[in-house]
Amino acid sequence: MKIKLTVSYDGTNYCGWQVQPNGITVQQVLEDALFLATGERTRITGSGRTDAGVHAQGQVAHFETKSSIPPEKFYKALNARLPEDIKVIKSELADDHFHACNNAKKKTYTYSLYMSEVENPLRERYAVRVDENINIEKMKEVAKLLVGEHDFKAFCASGSGAKTTVRTIYNINIENVNGEIKILVTGNGFLYNMVRIIVGTLIGVSKNEIDKADVQKMLTTGKRPQSIKTLSPKGLCLTSVEYE
Amino acid sequence: MKIKLTVSYDGTNYCGWQVQPNGITVQQVLEDALFLATGERTRITGSGRTDAGVHAQGQVAHFETKSSIPPEKFYKALNARLPEDIKVIKSELADDHFHACNNAKKKTYTYSLYMSEVENPLRERYAVRVDENINIEKMKEVAKLLVGEHDFKAFCASGSGAKTTVRTIYNINIENVNGEIKILVTGNGFLYNMVRIIVGTLIGVSKNEIDKADVQKMLTTGKRPQSIKTLSPKGLCLTSVEYE
Repeated sequence: MKIKLTVSYDGTNYCGWQVQPNGITVQQVLEDALFLATGERTRITGSGRTDAGVHAQGQVAHFETKSSIPPEKFYKALNARLPEDIKVIKSELADDHFHACNNAKKKTYTYSLYMSEVENPLRERYAVRVDENINIEKMKEVAKLLVGEHDFKAFCASGSGAKTTVRTIYNINIENVNGEIKILVTGNGFLYNMVRIIVGTLIGVSKNEIDKADVQKMLTTGKRPQSIKTLSPKGLCLTSVEYE
Repeated sequence: MKIKLTVSYDGTNYCGWQVQPNGITVQQVLEDALFLATGERTRITGSGRTDAGVHAQGQVAHFETKSSIPPEKFYKALNARLPEDIKVIKSELADDHFHACNNAKKKTYTYSLYMSEVENPLRERYAVRVDENINIEKMKEVAKLLVGEHDFKAFCASGSGAKTTVRTIYNINIENVNGEIKILVTGNGFLYNMVRIIVGTLIGVSKNEIDKADVQKMLTTGKRPQSIKTLSPKGLCLTSVEYE
């Protein structure tokens, strides 16, 4: 049978989602927990990779198993064998054709910033500090340009093996909650570092380092001004993945 | 001159505020940073101790110095020498008679709970998980009994050297913000583990393990029912300290 998992993790101590030769990854820790629970050495396929240091509230993954553990109880069997910073929040029986990566229709990432002159030790783990003069209205204005189907080549780190750099962003929502700025980006898929570059771009605009016309030019030329920063992974969280 | 500091810290990796023979404490790390910044080996006096694992958003402390660093710039000199999980958010010149502990009039602690059937790795560092059926209205009802001047002996861990167990609670505010329950307790001072036992009591009431009459009895007899838990330090944060 096929099981669908919804997984939360604090990515601080992991080299991202995907199994790799050097360094511990979330996928590997989950597969080890599954092995301990079932005796089966099975691949767990995620909706996509998350980079080193990126967090997840609702990563989705699937795997095949011959185990007799009931699908909706699987999360308990896995959580008993998982460390504190990775937990399965839901397990369920999936259709035989379900594929966590290929069938994903929408993903939402949240990037968290906080406004303060000084680093706040209680926020630094999950958010990135910006100066108090950040202009959210300006960020919202420019975010509108990015919504829709575009070639996001200028918002992609080099070294990505993506076949096409065209993606659709359905929505960018920016809220200020108690001095914490939450930027929620929903799209049909994301290029390597894309959300972190988008947020770097919005901050650049807010600081008047670039303007709206520069962002428009990024979409048409595929080139990124050098001043735009790729923000730290620690502010990024894969919030949810939606399927049909 | 005398300097007043406002300090934030993530207490996870510290044996509390107060210098002790075994284990690293926040006070010691601050004093070391001050030594590196000024060459002076000086005591930094806090508004009070926080226990191992307890966090602070606005701990207040003072020290004497002959340094020529301007008082309002002192936070920068210290932060450059402090680790990521301890930062001074404000420094200012204090009156010669100012004493961070003796002059403190009000302290506010915040205890954070979150409602979930499963542990959430992104909340576990700063909050304690409770079942989703927690009854906030019941908690508020019983919290009212504790407001005012009372003998809080039943809410004090043994081993405390306090001369009197009478304290005044000015306010207990309980809010539910996105499934996170914030319990703010403001008082003129707190006994050893007092806030953690108060929150344990409120949860006991919410779960019908004890009732309002039992809490009333705790205040009159000074005895605590065995079922009441002292909650984990990780959910506790010293939010602010007020002076006249």
